Amino acid sequence: MSQERVYTEPEVLERLKELAGWDLRDGWLRRKYRTPGWSHTLMLANAIAYLAEAAYHHPDLSLGYAEITVKLQTHRVHGITDNDFELAKKIHEVVTWKPPPGGALPGYPKKWIE
Amino acid sequence: MSQERVYTEPEVLERLKELAGWDLRDGWLRRKYRTPGWSHTLMLANAIAYLAEAAYHHPDLSLGYAEITVKLQTHRVHGITDNDFELAKKIHEVVTWKPPPGGALPGYPKKWIE
Repeated sequence: MSQERVYTEPEVLERLKELAGWDLRDGWLRRKYRTPGWSHTLMLANAIAYLAEAAYHHPDLSLGYAEITVKLQTHRVHGITDNDFELAKKIHEVVTWKPPPGGALPGYPKKWIE
Repeated sequence: MSQERVYTEPEVLERLKELAGWDLRDGWLRRKYRTPGWSHTLMLANAIAYLAEAAYHHPDLSLGYAEITVKLQTHRVHGITDNDFELAKKIHEVVTWKPPPGGALPGYPKKWIE
């Protein structure tokens, strides 16, 4: 919690250029992830929950059959802070991870979460 | 699946030097993670499950109240291959992640999973 700087909307939009697929809506950083179906949706929710608990900063999640919308905001300041950017980046890195081509691991045989 | 090389026991032990806390027991790569309690144990199981599905290589898990034992082996060759090392490394990296000191995220306020 070294930073409590609240970013302005233009600043948020600038920083979002580094976060593929994330946008700003109604004061929240937001990203929709599409999954192969319900069981993977639940696995994704749990993976995000694990990272949120490690970070101790918790997003709102909305689950559909084959999608999750993640929403991040720093509640105590009603705005977007480095907490939100840092957790968005970590979530995105982990949940879109796929084994690198040329490695041993086969990877999920259909379209993975993105 | 570019590699189906099965590692000998001395080779496995050599490579395990790069994987903190993992050992070889009864032909499995094995690591015990300790958690703050049952709800975190379940979150950890789900986080590992998510990575395993992305990799499409699945460990055996044994859950206790505040611990999980992860076991990896390449079933079709009854031995340890690069699949096991690569997934062990990824699991370890993600499940022991903590926000870096000096960043905005506070991190879990008690002892995190290790």
